[in-house]
Amino acid sequence: MDISLSEYGERLRGVRERMSQQGLSALMVSDPSNLYYLTGYNAWSFYTAQVLFVPAVGDLVLFARTMDAHGAFRTSWLPQENVYGYPDELVHRAGVHPFDWVGGKLRELGVVASAAGEQVGLELDSHFFSPKAYRALVAALPEWNFVDSVELVNWVRSVKSLAEIDFMRSAAQIATVAMSTAFEHVRVGSRQCDVAAEISRAQIRGTAEFGGDYPAIVPMMPTGAEADTPHLTWTDAPFEDGQAVIVELAGAYRRYHVPLARTVMLGRPSPELQRVAAAVGEGIQAVLEMVRPGAQARDLAATWERVLATHGLAKPSRIGYSIGIGYPPDWGERTVSLREEDETVLRENMTFHLIGGMWMDNYGYELSEPMRVTATGVETFTSLPRQLINAGILS
Amino acid sequence: MDISLSEYGERLRGVRERMSQQGLSALMVSDPSNLYYLTGYNAWSFYTAQVLFVPAVGDLVLFARTMDAHGAFRTSWLPQENVYGYPDELVHRAGVHPFDWVGGKLRELGVVASAAGEQVGLELDSHFFSPKAYRALVAALPEWNFVDSVELVNWVRSVKSLAEIDFMRSAAQIATVAMSTAFEHVRVGSRQCDVAAEISRAQIRGTAEFGGDYPAIVPMMPTGAEADTPHLTWTDAPFEDGQAVIVELAGAYRRYHVPLARTVMLGRPSPELQRVAAAVGEGIQAVLEMVRPGAQARDLAATWERVLATHGLAKPSRIGYSIGIGYPPDWGERTVSLREEDETVLRENMTFHLIGGMWMDNYGYELSEPMRVTATGVETFTSLPRQLINAGILS
Repeated sequence: MDISLSEYGERLRGVRERMSQQGLSALMVSDPSNLYYLTGYNAWSFYTAQVLFVPAVGDLVLFARTMDAHGAFRTSWLPQENVYGYPDELVHRAGVHPFDWVGGKLRELGVVASAAGEQVGLELDSHFFSPKAYRALVAALPEWNFVDSVELVNWVRSVKSLAEIDFMRSAAQIATVAMSTAFEHVRVGSRQCDVAAEISRAQIRGTAEFGGDYPAIVPMMPTGAEADTPHLTWTDAPFEDGQAVIVELAGAYRRYHVPLARTVMLGRPSPELQRVAAAVGEGIQAVLEMVRPGAQARDLAATWERVLATHGLAKPSRIGYSIGIGYPPDWGERTVSLREEDETVLRENMTFHLIGGMWMDNYGYELSEPMRVTATGVETFTSLPRQLINAGILS
Repeated sequence: MDISLSEYGERLRGVRERMSQQGLSALMVSDPSNLYYLTGYNAWSFYTAQVLFVPAVGDLVLFARTMDAHGAFRTSWLPQENVYGYPDELVHRAGVHPFDWVGGKLRELGVVASAAGEQVGLELDSHFFSPKAYRALVAALPEWNFVDSVELVNWVRSVKSLAEIDFMRSAAQIATVAMSTAFEHVRVGSRQCDVAAEISRAQIRGTAEFGGDYPAIVPMMPTGAEADTPHLTWTDAPFEDGQAVIVELAGAYRRYHVPLARTVMLGRPSPELQRVAAAVGEGIQAVLEMVRPGAQARDLAATWERVLATHGLAKPSRIGYSIGIGYPPDWGERTVSLREEDETVLRENMTFHLIGGMWMDNYGYELSEPMRVTATGVETFTSLPRQLINAGILS
């Protein structure tokens, strides 16, 4: 166990406090990041249905496929008797859903009647909680009034403990090693896939002191003209002279993520790219200088927009998001977004991926900095040069 | 484009034929594997909402986040004018959902009234289609009668074309290289993460002739006592003498997957493990001999159970599933499961991962074979020895 039992207790108290504020008698947690946060349960089992029942008072109960429930005790602090496995024949089968069974088991456990007529929160926008799952719960538990928990646990996660910050510093070391590996391998004539392979290897090896975990997203390398679109993955084409290669990756340590982006130039950059790179560097620097407790998310976005406007540029998308625990397909927390519509007030030990990604016509540029809000300002997690990287210069 | 336009036409015809059988006027496709199958669209954009509108007659229309829609033409055959980007401020934000906007746009496009009162299929058990997304569509399009499409496109995918089988043969080559890499690196004293790193590198490099794609699942390596649970990922602990290490991985080529599992023994296996390994080898062999068009999924499961029973063993979970295109978190197609409840009749060019995974108390054993149903029997995709692998023997 990497997190102390008392810290798990703190987390649960934080969740129950929010449940009380939102008027919830119970909460059903299915986001694997939230499951991990509350229990330590960590396995690649989220492609089948699983859910943690969190009552306002009383024991947590985890439901998973039998083969996964069997060993839940190996990673979580939950006593094995509070973990129930549903039958395997309910997996991936038309006409039935594992949550039919879960509804029956909750009834058997005697926890349904006590919350009859009351509000029970569901994570209605979680990746691994399907409409079929939702409809199974509604049908099985008609006494409960299901409402959207609106990322309740994710919001509790947004302020990090000292233990979590330590994990993120380890993840930052891995991110730095992985990005340095990219700088070393992006060369004219190298196949994109071979560079992605070296990055992936570096991410998983970690350091001599501690191993890396799998990142929630594979290395992204939009290249050349295709770098006008952010989320394309690699091909086996070789890199060519004159291409700018956007590298976006994360270091992951015990499921905590520190993402990082740089753009690597093969050969001579165009004047347009240089202009965008200068503007983005200036914008990121100006935003970092604004970060402190009490500032609002939208203040950072406004600063960014102001700097970009002086260069005749604009970016019609958010410039960052809250980070921490992640499972595929996302390392963001889905809470705070750095954009003009977001009035969240920054607090000490919130952590963000601040990301200047410019998707232009037939080229792109990206520069990012992962960071923590400190008592008085900002701590950046990494310290690589914040500029367009010349592939030649480091060879 | 790796798949010909005429093959995309065939796929769409297959989908529309099923739509007609199921009484659907239109279908909303959000599973990234199904999107890729129908359009070629391929990006790590599925952590935000996206959906393909497939009417019974007329143009397909893709909706994605603006930054992703911008470059959809780079991977798909869809004309750019049939791809719409929703505003970025709808991403990960309480109280709104991108599908509010999608509903409005469908109305603007004039396709809502024509299907009023008719059934429109939704992928209600797809990983990246949340209840919030579902409720947004229901609210925005009250004229439509939404019903579960019940893995409609997945079922069309279950029988492979010759082009797809070629891709899977390439994926099989990568799986073999990656598994051989595991055999080479699993050693007493090696850190689990370092072995996972080498496997991942091999998967992404692929071969000198063609590069690898990212597998939908990271390398699994349940080890020693923890191998009684199937889906645990690696740690940075070193391997120890006496441990059995289950390695489950896939080769991926252009999103097509060929998974493969073997168990590597460090030192001397216990008599129990040897007994289980022998039974599983015999069971897998007996099942392979049963495979041919016309056999039912449940026949294979029954054969397996019969062989295991002769050894005093049983396995309370399915022994395989249909494979092909995959995105995280799953490389299965969620259609055919090899188990006693499944009456699917096997057809030529269906492809499966046949998997004998035994989760015992404090140890485990896994042996698998990916395979294709041929006109008269079976083709196995790989040819590694089907037995407990002695780590020493291959050093």
